[in-house]
Amino acid sequence: MIIRPRPHWLRMLFVLRGSVVPQIAPQLIAVTALAVAVTVLHGQVLQWKIPLNFVPFSLIGLTLAIFLGFRNSTSYARYWEARTLWGALLTESRSLLRMALTQVDGPPGNAQPLARRLMAFVHALRHQLRGTDPTGDLRRLLPDSDCERLAGARYQPALLLLMAGEWLQAQRQAGRLAPAIVPAMEAPLDRLSQALGGCERIAGTPIPFTYAVMIHRTIYIYCILLPFGLVDALGLMTPVIVAFLAYTFFALEALGTEIEEPFGTEPNDLALDAMSAAVEASLREMLGEALPPVSPPAPGQIVLT
Amino acid sequence: MIIRPRPHWLRMLFVLRGSVVPQIAPQLIAVTALAVAVTVLHGQVLQWKIPLNFVPFSLIGLTLAIFLGFRNSTSYARYWEARTLWGALLTESRSLLRMALTQVDGPPGNAQPLARRLMAFVHALRHQLRGTDPTGDLRRLLPDSDCERLAGARYQPALLLLMAGEWLQAQRQAGRLAPAIVPAMEAPLDRLSQALGGCERIAGTPIPFTYAVMIHRTIYIYCILLPFGLVDALGLMTPVIVAFLAYTFFALEALGTEIEEPFGTEPNDLALDAMSAAVEASLREMLGEALPPVSPPAPGQIVLT
Amino acid sequence: MIIRPRPHWLRMLFVLRGSVVPQIAPQLIAVTALAVAVTVLHGQVLQWKIPLNFVPFSLIGLTLAIFLGFRNSTSYARYWEARTLWGALLTESRSLLRMALTQVDGPPGNAQPLARRLMAFVHALRHQLRGTDPTGDLRRLLPDSDCERLAGARYQPALLLLMAGEWLQAQRQAGRLAPAIVPAMEAPLDRLSQALGGCERIAGTPIPFTYAVMIHRTIYIYCILLPFGLVDALGLMTPVIVAFLAYTFFALEALGTEIEEPFGTEPNDLALDAMSAAVEASLREMLGEALPPVSPPAPGQIVLT
Amino acid sequence: MIIRPRPHWLRMLFVLRGSVVPQIAPQLIAVTALAVAVTVLHGQVLQWKIPLNFVPFSLIGLTLAIFLGFRNSTSYARYWEARTLWGALLTESRSLLRMALTQVDGPPGNAQPLARRLMAFVHALRHQLRGTDPTGDLRRLLPDSDCERLAGARYQPALLLLMAGEWLQAQRQAGRLAPAIVPAMEAPLDRLSQALGGCERIAGTPIPFTYAVMIHRTIYIYCILLPFGLVDALGLMTPVIVAFLAYTFFALEALGTEIEEPFGTEPNDLALDAMSAAVEASLREMLGEALPPVSPPAPGQIVLT
Amino acid sequence: MIIRPRPHWLRMLFVLRGSVVPQIAPQLIAVTALAVAVTVLHGQVLQWKIPLNFVPFSLIGLTLAIFLGFRNSTSYARYWEARTLWGALLTESRSLLRMALTQVDGPPGNAQPLARRLMAFVHALRHQLRGTDPTGDLRRLLPDSDCERLAGARYQPALLLLMAGEWLQAQRQAGRLAPAIVPAMEAPLDRLSQALGGCERIAGTPIPFTYAVMIHRTIYIYCILLPFGLVDALGLMTPVIVAFLAYTFFALEALGTEIEEPFGTEPNDLALDAMSAAVEASLREMLGEALPPVSPPAPGQIVLT
Repeated sequence: MIIRPRPHWLRMLFVLRGSVVPQIAPQLIAVTALAVAVTVLHGQVLQWKIPLNFVPFSLIGLTLAIFLGFRNSTSYARYWEARTLWGALLTESRSLLRMALTQVDGPPGNAQPLARRLMAFVHALRHQLRGTDPTGDLRRLLPDSDCERLAGARYQPALLLLMAGEWLQAQRQAGRLAPAIVPAMEAPLDRLSQALGGCERIAGTPIPFTYAVMIHRTIYIYCILLPFGLVDALGLMTPVIVAFLAYTFFALEALGTEIEEPFGTEPNDLALDAMSAAVEASLREMLGEALPPVSPPAPGQIVLT
Repeated sequence: MIIRPRPHWLRMLFVLRGSVVPQIAPQLIAVTALAVAVTVLHGQVLQWKIPLNFVPFSLIGLTLAIFLGFRNSTSYARYWEARTLWGALLTESRSLLRMALTQVDGPPGNAQPLARRLMAFVHALRHQLRGTDPTGDLRRLLPDSDCERLAGARYQPALLLLMAGEWLQAQRQAGRLAPAIVPAMEAPLDRLSQALGGCERIAGTPIPFTYAVMIHRTIYIYCILLPFGLVDALGLMTPVIVAFLAYTFFALEALGTEIEEPFGTEPNDLALDAMSAAVEASLREMLGEALPPVSPPAPGQIVLT
Repeated sequence: MIIRPRPHWLRMLFVLRGSVVPQIAPQLIAVTALAVAVTVLHGQVLQWKIPLNFVPFSLIGLTLAIFLGFRNSTSYARYWEARTLWGALLTESRSLLRMALTQVDGPPGNAQPLARRLMAFVHALRHQLRGTDPTGDLRRLLPDSDCERLAGARYQPALLLLMAGEWLQAQRQAGRLAPAIVPAMEAPLDRLSQALGGCERIAGTPIPFTYAVMIHRTIYIYCILLPFGLVDALGLMTPVIVAFLAYTFFALEALGTEIEEPFGTEPNDLALDAMSAAVEASLREMLGEALPPVSPPAPGQIVLT
Repeated sequence: MIIRPRPHWLRMLFVLRGSVVPQIAPQLIAVTALAVAVTVLHGQVLQWKIPLNFVPFSLIGLTLAIFLGFRNSTSYARYWEARTLWGALLTESRSLLRMALTQVDGPPGNAQPLARRLMAFVHALRHQLRGTDPTGDLRRLLPDSDCERLAGARYQPALLLLMAGEWLQAQRQAGRLAPAIVPAMEAPLDRLSQALGGCERIAGTPIPFTYAVMIHRTIYIYCILLPFGLVDALGLMTPVIVAFLAYTFFALEALGTEIEEPFGTEPNDLALDAMSAAVEASLREMLGEALPPVSPPAPGQIVLT
Repeated sequence: MIIRPRPHWLRMLFVLRGSVVPQIAPQLIAVTALAVAVTVLHGQVLQWKIPLNFVPFSLIGLTLAIFLGFRNSTSYARYWEARTLWGALLTESRSLLRMALTQVDGPPGNAQPLARRLMAFVHALRHQLRGTDPTGDLRRLLPDSDCERLAGARYQPALLLLMAGEWLQAQRQAGRLAPAIVPAMEAPLDRLSQALGGCERIAGTPIPFTYAVMIHRTIYIYCILLPFGLVDALGLMTPVIVAFLAYTFFALEALGTEIEEPFGTEPNDLALDAMSAAVEASLREMLGEALPPVSPPAPGQIVLT
């Protein structure tokens, strides 16, 4: 996630960090080069003047708008739903720990194992979504027996929710938790399970691939034909206009591709590292543990991972 | 569901798997052939020059955009809601089994019958949605008495939820489950029932048929008239532009038709087989059963069913 | 609701059932006749040539797109919400009956009166929404004393939910239902009440009438002026294009009007009869009652009521 | 709310009730007069021919469509959410009273005070939203002591929910309501509180004022410049087209302004009077009280308040 | 938040408060000056006539509409969700206090500490979202021991919810609150936690920065090229039209930027001060405390903070 103060409106025209220009540079250069060639040749290919004007592009704009608008809003909806699900991880962990601290009548420190399992759950989910190795975080937070049980499991976060439930079971069987209060504490556990399932859904189900193919093709055919349609009327301005239009199309497609899979590590993806750390910090603060000081971002650092 | 790494932008222009070109080829060829004929005849039919230009197409674009945009977003909304409902099957099965393992004080293996019924529920729902025979999966998971009770039932998944409720009843009557905890365990059962009802709703209620008729007609009349409107200005480029425009319309319509009924077995439909297997695997892992190794997809296999 | 296999793409251009052409035929013929007259007179009215071109229609397209797009998506949203509410009737009736069968410790057949009241509730709601007489269905399902209590009531479905609650009361007072379980059983009752209220809301609150007036006027003025704007450029094709454009406008308006009130009995309205029967069948199956065989639809029958 | 059968399509072109034409007549006449003047002067101001054509209006259409579409859909969303919240008042009042009648073991008439407070709550909310005096309705429904407590309160509906809670307290303390059932009865009270908060939110937070300013200005500048851009091409038809376009803009803006604040008493606002009466009638029917006959609307009366 | 009666339609064309004109004046003047220069030079730069017409702008309109429409609706969705979350703060605080007053059997004044913590929670959240110092409000509402515990905490509102839970714990341990009622009271606490998490989410996750860059660039390139495309056809009207179009683009962008971060103190941001005060007043009224008179807004004051 890119965190930076909004630059001045003049400077914003030229920022590179946070722009997608580097990623789409090859296509952009290719299309602009074609436009230059078409302009130089006055729209002729092998001595044949390609007869085109702006009308087809205005008609194609109809479906292109549907394609791009759909792609854009769907990608953003996935991004924002993913963010909301990660917000639920924070919210429901806090609720569960709050009840563990106030509705379970144990000795001081009684709720710590539960809190550790919740922190491990969030870290394990992050690692699962990014395909990284959770061992370090698990070992840091859990006793060895728990780590062994988790090692090699296919659905580690789901197991960690089961282990949170086992803590509840132990409290109830020890008489520290009245059965009538159990439903209140199972509710946030259920919602954590829903947030987990939601993340698995977004990570596992892309926007149907056929959309990407259709959009990609339509954009490219449009951009390849465009200089032939404009050169008669615009002359030397043709490459400028083609480059400008191609930039908006390619940039929209590239950004859509980036935020469609919000759990990655590209600049506009969600800051899972920072959010996992925030859950851990908030739970530790509720337990009364001292928090390490927040390290300020390095100067010029604007991307949270 | 098509699972493949995003190809390079150049290769993506030519992929066939995941494209809908094969399905719409006949219409596309027919419309292009008409455009060629119109171009050759210079827009004359029986010696009469059809007087048309681009204006009507720009005006018709108005309603066509509404039709196609509506169709597309509605179809995708059905697709994504269906996916979300199947996500709820996983989530709520896990929640219910978690409570069965921690809030019911039975001997080891006590929760297995419930887990088996939940697995059978998911498989039975898949078979119901696809109109296939569930007997194999039911026999694999349930004792014979349960299979007999289900045989010939019209609403098998609903009966399986009832049988999950009967397991709860038996635990409560045996004193292993406190009545105060029952509401917590009925909650995920209710949500499974809602997911079931949601799937039945999407499978049983198509987008009103009249929309399909209106969109279909508008697209075809548009494509048939289009070459007459373009030939004067575009000459020999007319068939190229008509084919391009027709491709975007037909592809959008075809994809809409495909994902509108997301429970089918077309390439972009939901991977119900894979998702049912995931629910079963996750529940088995919670029970502590060993999971069979995941067989990697065959090389080149990109469609999950 | 129209249930039919999707016809072949060629046949689909000519289907009449499911099309709205019959309903809008008068307006369509009137507008086309006007266009023919304008074409014959070369756009002159009383020797005065009306000066118009396509520009105003392209500008008016702006608000017209907003009107029609809004009308269309709002009507469909009402349709789909209504369908979802009826799905909730099925879902929550099943959940309540499931708990009545498993969490209430009565003799066999104990839950039958509750099931009967739930069936009567669904039928009564259907009759209320369609303004038909519920007596037949109520007499078929309920004892005479209940029918008398309901006779003449203004809000019959709400009373039937109260009577379902009275069954719960009787069970609790007889000691068959633990108070701690009551909240679990009141939850689906609440959701049935919400579904009832949602249906009453959709049935009782149309889209603001002013929208219909504005859309209607804009479409008609547009269609009346259109031939004057096209005749200079299109000549004899003017009536064809006007008829085509008018078809898309009128059809969109007519379909919007039809599904905006989804509880009626027009071809695209919801199949309340079929859905009530499905609720009754599913509840009967849960009670263990034998279901009557499903009568296959008559050949050619494609509209469910 | 305007309740009328949909008129015949011909008559609908000329209805005045339910149209916004009377409200926007001044602006409409002003703009049309300007267009007439421009037409007469052939687009010259002080001997200077204003050089304009249709192009700027087509470009401005872009942002105008965003403004108007946003304004329209946001206003309607507020309207419909308000209607949904008032539906929740009905639904949740019924649910709470249903439980008061079946889950509280009191003598006949025991639930009447609660029902009265719920009725008073709905009436008080209506008066608060419309800024009218609730005293009459409160005195009609509540004993004097309650009326005194409410007199001068700033948040009367919130106090009435507290008083409904006090009825629950009294029942519990009298041993008529098991503590285990309390959560079931607090749930609809919570949802009534949410509906109250939702109504306060809509009533207290308008769409940001800046939108209204931007839309207003854009529309008016557009309409003032428009005749200069059309007069060269359309000649004497200019005023007709300008009036038509201005009608659609002004009408859309006026309707948006009307339904944006749905709790008022303009023709398209919500029928709070009728809905409050419906809540009261439905609760009375559940108590077994006789309902007064429904007075049919006076002939020609089509607006519910 | 700007609260003012809707001005007369003529006056509304000239209001400055609530308009964004002051903020965008520099850019607007720069673009208009460029347009004047282009007009004076007849579109020539260094003796070279830039060949442009309106076509490219009509094509670019496609993506620009997607950008601006997306930005606008997303910003408003954030604004409205933030407002809804603050509505939940009011609603759920009332619900929790209502139960504390009626379902906890304590002496008069027993619920006061809980009410104070809820008030402090809302104020602390406001200060956290705006980055201001909460000490004053905390000291005003809480005893010193609580203030010390909160001092230096990183997540003060989350700690205050924990302290509200501790009040529940004390009541339960003192026998004033039946365990069976605890779930009912934890429910609004959970929802307060969700509202808190939602606010943190909106405050901490901006719309991806890349969108802002793309929109900004597209608008500016569009506005810089525009005079060259219009000057041939519009002559001296070019600067007027360019200024008008630039106004709509810049204003839309500026308003989006303003409401995208709804917790700030710009004129269209949410009135957190007023809303916090309303929560406090409503809770005090429920406790039976006298409310201070509402000070009417100063004449001409139209912005709530």
